[in-house]
Amino acid sequence: MSEIITRQVVLASRPQGEPTDDNFRIVESPLPACGDGEVLVRTIYLSLDPYMRGRMSAAKSYAEPVPIGGVMEGGAVSEVLDSRHEGFKKGDFVVGSTGWQTYALAKGAYLSKIKIDSKIAPLSTAVGVLGMPGMTAYTGLLNIGQPKECETVVVAAASGAVGAIVGQIAKIKGARVVGIAGGKEKCDFVVNELGFDACLDHREDYLAQRLAEACPKGIDVYFENVGGKVAEAVYPLLNNFARVPVCGLIANYNDSAPPPGPNMAPALMRSILTKRLTLRGFIVSDFASQRDDFLKDVTNWISEGKIKYREDIVDGLDNAPRAFQGLLRGENFGKLVVKVADAN
Amino acid sequence: MSEIITRQVVLASRPQGEPTDDNFRIVESPLPACGDGEVLVRTIYLSLDPYMRGRMSAAKSYAEPVPIGGVMEGGAVSEVLDSRHEGFKKGDFVVGSTGWQTYALAKGAYLSKIKIDSKIAPLSTAVGVLGMPGMTAYTGLLNIGQPKECETVVVAAASGAVGAIVGQIAKIKGARVVGIAGGKEKCDFVVNELGFDACLDHREDYLAQRLAEACPKGIDVYFENVGGKVAEAVYPLLNNFARVPVCGLIANYNDSAPPPGPNMAPALMRSILTKRLTLRGFIVSDFASQRDDFLKDVTNWISEGKIKYREDIVDGLDNAPRAFQGLLRGENFGKLVVKVADAN
Repeated sequence: MSEIITRQVVLASRPQGEPTDDNFRIVESPLPACGDGEVLVRTIYLSLDPYMRGRMSAAKSYAEPVPIGGVMEGGAVSEVLDSRHEGFKKGDFVVGSTGWQTYALAKGAYLSKIKIDSKIAPLSTAVGVLGMPGMTAYTGLLNIGQPKECETVVVAAASGAVGAIVGQIAKIKGARVVGIAGGKEKCDFVVNELGFDACLDHREDYLAQRLAEACPKGIDVYFENVGGKVAEAVYPLLNNFARVPVCGLIANYNDSAPPPGPNMAPALMRSILTKRLTLRGFIVSDFASQRDDFLKDVTNWISEGKIKYREDIVDGLDNAPRAFQGLLRGENFGKLVVKVADAN
Repeated sequence: MSEIITRQVVLASRPQGEPTDDNFRIVESPLPACGDGEVLVRTIYLSLDPYMRGRMSAAKSYAEPVPIGGVMEGGAVSEVLDSRHEGFKKGDFVVGSTGWQTYALAKGAYLSKIKIDSKIAPLSTAVGVLGMPGMTAYTGLLNIGQPKECETVVVAAASGAVGAIVGQIAKIKGARVVGIAGGKEKCDFVVNELGFDACLDHREDYLAQRLAEACPKGIDVYFENVGGKVAEAVYPLLNNFARVPVCGLIANYNDSAPPPGPNMAPALMRSILTKRLTLRGFIVSDFASQRDDFLKDVTNWISEGKIKYREDIVDGLDNAPRAFQGLLRGENFGKLVVKVADAN
């Protein structure tokens, strides 16, 4: 096999606040030959997700930051070109954290073969509803949120990769589901296509008041993936014993210092105490053992028409930095995926 | 039976910040005769607990506030003088929320007969280690904290009614236990008598640094009953997947408005997310069904010498307001109880 040149988006500098074009750089470099246990892959779909903002900062999170000059981290659907790992052979489609690049050399141990029935869902869903975002929604909602029939579930970023699935699973479990999203078009989609009971536009005024009207019995589960002003509207409406799976805080990802006062942390702790709330942070890998259950259930729900999904597909790796900046501003509509190459 | 005059501590006015003498008033009033289902009791030991500060404020908590002019709320050990409830007879000792007064007329349904073996523990422990504070420690630690062998448990107010029991149960479960208390005398007691591995004086400087040294493997369970500066020292040391039973926030009970900034609520949410913490508020009645297990286990541990307790007994109902003010400043040493009358 002739030498492979991979085109990569690397981290040029750490953002101060919102990422800009200057924080990214595109480079090309040759890949070495496949070593023992390694797999050479060609990227087809790259997933863009809010957590990547955390990797761009030097602060320790649940994972190490991307080093300056390092390839941006990201999950992708790829095709195997060469394999020196017994689990994979040329032509397999795999998913793994292979980064923002056109080709990658990956340890086979960190890849998974994609087993999606193409009659049910396309390959790209391996980084969407049938991948990390879908499993995040499934595990966080069912393990921590634990919605019961007739309870009220609120989910922000309701048309997004995770929120859309959270709300639909909560509906399947018999809950009343209220979404929050940015703009009328997204809200209409959430209600008319995804079947939420209501969806509020956070760009309009009086969110707290509209949310109170949409949740006349209070809120039993708040799937937290945004923080900020949406969270401020939600907390006063939480019922006793409400559960808050803490999945993301996109509103704060660009903060470089704590915001000005007053300090609301004591009030938050007081509401945890007096309402006996459960707040629990998680990431999808905490529930890795539930992967088979997730795939079986969500595949069934898709084929039964109970779960719908929307993808926002951007063409070409070079457009990934701009698309990612838009994601942090809520400009995507559905699961954001970069199509890096054709499948065949 | 001749007319009974009960002497009562009533709420004269709502405190602004720390309660003062002026917020309380002592009155006497005649009790009506025992009605159907009611029990007339003579108070022996009145329990004073931090949660009572919440009842003095107008703000809604998990219970209604005491009305102005109403009898201060509180649990007590009492002797039955007359009963028109089939569960109780003259001479029984009972525990119930009968308030800050020398006599009370109570619904039998809200009283429990005390079944403490006097060879194991005195009657007063029915509002202490074998009552509400002990059960708070037991249920909060075991259901939410879930300490495992060799994990590190930190408990503040470590010589207090709840903290002392939390730490000793955590030791029984095989954890390393670090207490935090106010003053050298309390710290010595916590280590030498209660058997904690270490105890730090929060009045000394460099609490955060000393806590880090005392917890070289980080903190897996933080039993939150104080908030404030102690909590600020604890949070940076919490390990991934740490559990925080939120039982009380005495440092904030006198606050009348959120403290000045910066606003640390987003940073708190971020640590919940990235460390996958569980914060869960509770009150003892949430676990009412575990009462028999609690009584059996803790009685056994006391008789085996594995749980010790210290009571701080104040004489006379009229001294209750001053003793309660001292409790909020950490001046008590052990479970604070007011001896209202002799048992016989």
